[in-house]
Amino acid sequence: MAEKITPRAENYPKWYLNVVQEAGLADNSDVRGCMVIKPNGYAIWENMQRGLDRMFKDTGHVNAYFPLFIPMSYLAKEEEMAEGFAKECAVVTHYRLKAEKGQPLKVDPTAELEEPLIVRPTSETIIWRTYKSWIQSWRDLPLLINQWANVVRWEMRTRLFLRTAEFLWQEGHTAHATAAEAEAETLQMVKVYAKFAEEFMAVPVLVGPKTDGQKFPGAIYTLCIEAMMQDGKALQAGTSHFLGQNFAKAFDVKFTTADNKKEFAWATSWGASTRLIGGLIMTHSDDQGLVVPPRLAATHVVICPLGKTEDERAPALAAAKKLAEELKAFPREEFFGYEPIRVTIDNDLKSSPGYRFGLHEVRGVPIRVEIGPKDLAKEVPTCMVARRDFQYRVEIEPELNHQKKAETPLATAATDIAVALKDIQRVLFDRAKKYLDARTVTANTLEEFAGYFPVKAGEKDDEELDLNALKFVYAHWDGTRETEDLVQKNYKATIRCLPFEGPLEPGTCPFTGKPSARMVVFARAY
Amino acid sequence: MAEKITPRAENYPKWYLNVVQEAGLADNSDVRGCMVIKPNGYAIWENMQRGLDRMFKDTGHVNAYFPLFIPMSYLAKEEEMAEGFAKECAVVTHYRLKAEKGQPLKVDPTAELEEPLIVRPTSETIIWRTYKSWIQSWRDLPLLINQWANVVRWEMRTRLFLRTAEFLWQEGHTAHATAAEAEAETLQMVKVYAKFAEEFMAVPVLVGPKTDGQKFPGAIYTLCIEAMMQDGKALQAGTSHFLGQNFAKAFDVKFTTADNKKEFAWATSWGASTRLIGGLIMTHSDDQGLVVPPRLAATHVVICPLGKTEDERAPALAAAKKLAEELKAFPREEFFGYEPIRVTIDNDLKSSPGYRFGLHEVRGVPIRVEIGPKDLAKEVPTCMVARRDFQYRVEIEPELNHQKKAETPLATAATDIAVALKDIQRVLFDRAKKYLDARTVTANTLEEFAGYFPVKAGEKDDEELDLNALKFVYAHWDGTRETEDLVQKNYKATIRCLPFEGPLEPGTCPFTGKPSARMVVFARAY
Repeated sequence: MAEKITPRAENYPKWYLNVVQEAGLADNSDVRGCMVIKPNGYAIWENMQRGLDRMFKDTGHVNAYFPLFIPMSYLAKEEEMAEGFAKECAVVTHYRLKAEKGQPLKVDPTAELEEPLIVRPTSETIIWRTYKSWIQSWRDLPLLINQWANVVRWEMRTRLFLRTAEFLWQEGHTAHATAAEAEAETLQMVKVYAKFAEEFMAVPVLVGPKTDGQKFPGAIYTLCIEAMMQDGKALQAGTSHFLGQNFAKAFDVKFTTADNKKEFAWATSWGASTRLIGGLIMTHSDDQGLVVPPRLAATHVVICPLGKTEDERAPALAAAKKLAEELKAFPREEFFGYEPIRVTIDNDLKSSPGYRFGLHEVRGVPIRVEIGPKDLAKEVPTCMVARRDFQYRVEIEPELNHQKKAETPLATAATDIAVALKDIQRVLFDRAKKYLDARTVTANTLEEFAGYFPVKAGEKDDEELDLNALKFVYAHWDGTRETEDLVQKNYKATIRCLPFEGPLEPGTCPFTGKPSARMVVFARAY
Repeated sequence: MAEKITPRAENYPKWYLNVVQEAGLADNSDVRGCMVIKPNGYAIWENMQRGLDRMFKDTGHVNAYFPLFIPMSYLAKEEEMAEGFAKECAVVTHYRLKAEKGQPLKVDPTAELEEPLIVRPTSETIIWRTYKSWIQSWRDLPLLINQWANVVRWEMRTRLFLRTAEFLWQEGHTAHATAAEAEAETLQMVKVYAKFAEEFMAVPVLVGPKTDGQKFPGAIYTLCIEAMMQDGKALQAGTSHFLGQNFAKAFDVKFTTADNKKEFAWATSWGASTRLIGGLIMTHSDDQGLVVPPRLAATHVVICPLGKTEDERAPALAAAKKLAEELKAFPREEFFGYEPIRVTIDNDLKSSPGYRFGLHEVRGVPIRVEIGPKDLAKEVPTCMVARRDFQYRVEIEPELNHQKKAETPLATAATDIAVALKDIQRVLFDRAKKYLDARTVTANTLEEFAGYFPVKAGEKDDEELDLNALKFVYAHWDGTRETEDLVQKNYKATIRCLPFEGPLEPGTCPFTGKPSARMVVFARAY
């Protein structure tokens, strides 16, 4: 398997594509920009959904579902949104095909829609049009609704999971009686994303507002989480928007206050998508394939009974089944709290052990257990437990070997494995945090800044630098859109966010010499 | 609440619409034929998804996701499918809008797609195009994949949940090495649907093949489950199709057999949709609103502490919280197996008890608990437990009162409620079964048959008969499409299925006098 994967240091984008394909996560389809999410990838998405959905419900939200199609005139009602999404909309203009014997299928010209429909790129407009009939009084507020859905943005350059024309996501849309409540919700939800990223994805993130130049079309401000990929680029992994009264005004959503006045409702929206899977892959995976934190892994443990013939393997298979049952029955309270351990048995008799181990390795199963006739013949029968996380990471821990196995008595294996799974979750986070910290720097002068973002003459936008070149760079900024645009033009770096966790001291903008309120984080980004 | 609901006997379609709206299940949207699924309706769908998904996984299936858009030429590749769906396709022809300052938003004429894209009405074509690259050898088979997705069929006459332009569903698409395996899968999955209908939805169903005239476009044959609604009409609630090698041939999906020959793969597909929610409503609900079996209820138990002021209510609220915790902690093994009891507390201080009780009744919460100061003042403190299922059903059990409350000691209430919930699930199924049996008849002659399906002169297609008029009618049929079409024309009845569970004796077709292999089931249908 691993020989099919280009090493990260050789060609990072190719490595990413290889991991996505060899780990069975996704495929490009014939439909431009639309991907097929394969079972191993979809299982990760299901686990993400389960984790996020629980956090949304624990914070008082309920799910609903709104139409896929949005009348073109709705999009036009909020000017920034129309401008922001007009250039990437899939447009439905007809509602019928013509199938005539012996003729090629064609669009029926007599079935043109009076008003074209847009395939939703995001659902603020259709949802706020609906809220108009749901919100009359302050008693109807807050309205705390989330939707799991597919959306379409006609991106011209796509990359599996990271940027696709169709993607899956959730979008929260809440309505509140006061600005303060809506702002508290905006902050709460970005914190939910940060918690999910750190506790489920094992991905450390920066949390804070975007600049005005980078905010969502139609928002007053946008809060985000930003993660660092192994090539030092940033990935925006979740956003939460305070929308003020923009959409209430666009769709005339007024409510009667407790003291009987009429007021426009206050809005938030927040979303995270299958893009998270791309971020997950690019944070933890290695040159042998996918590495995925146990909380999101499709399968936690694969047990491989060994032995060449069915007879020779029978005792190992029996032991494997027994261990699988023990793992499945392991108290969820002592595991990650709400789900049982997911185990599969690989009883492939046609393939070599090396092939089988390689397959599970490239597919990212956190723990592989091997049980062979020799292990069972011992006075205290044992098994071999191989962890997927003992793998060097670029620049960090180069001293570790690529795979670590440990012999464990079968009798205590289930407990040992549960402990190991929790340990893997921790190790992955700690490693990613160490990596982020090691590649985060401060630039006090223009020269320092320029050194961190070299641009080669004639370089294309997606051309890759040395894997170790890029950093998250803290630098001062004068707060203007002009300076932001200039930095993007000259260094291809954008302001990722103004992290809540500082530094918060004022200083001087290295680009203009003007005063700066605080340092912000610059990076190249996906 | 209930006064907003038209009684079934007065106007059944209006009753249905009232229940859907007053129970907070769905709304029509401004987008023709597309519905908004409201939180109380979506919660039922989530519970359906969880139940079905578990059954799919227990039978070896995994989930994946395929593109929303299908190139028009793909649909053309399978002739029956093209004919079957061409007339109801939403067609994407452009990928960009033009937003110019001061100008209305419009479709950008320079952004026309080379090939129009169809919004998937069903995914056989795009999936089998993908399977072509996934299936090379018999080792790759069987491929057992399911997808949860939205689909669009541009229906001209729509009704919430039952027939909408966009709906949510799951579609299974499996590939097999032999016809026998694919046929076994087809049968297995219709049985999964039947089990789900009976055990989760508490809806008894007929199971069997459709006639050739009613099968899915592109299928060799279709197996289905059919349920009876309270107006005696049939609702097709799930279908499983044996597709033979039709799609493998259309998309050239060949595999190498174990003895090294090339063969086309064998296919099945099977689906169930948000239509199930319509069937659920129309099976169990009553003139007071929604009735829903506990396994699918958004909330199992609502606890209403009573008392007019906050102070007066404090002890009741404390008791409500304690009971809620006990219910949530109730061992799931002793409940429905895998999920905890879902409880909410209604502590509304602004509304009267009557209003609050009415709200939970119309919304279909299976059990309402009332705790008041008087209940707590007793030597053995009690609460009132009101079951939502003690309700007469048209024609059946007219003697029962519309609501039944029982006093229960608080100390044992949690267990009593769990037992009652399981009992409600059983009662609803038994009642629906009794209803189905009571309205299932046999017609041995044309006169008898005609009597069961009276057609008024000038009657419109969707005009409603007396609620008690329609039946499921077993009758002989000569097996021809012509006779089937004739019956549909003259009596507006279709053959719902050829139930596996008989009767299987041969006889004479009452419509033509020709020999009939067996009786089939005729009904009017949604």
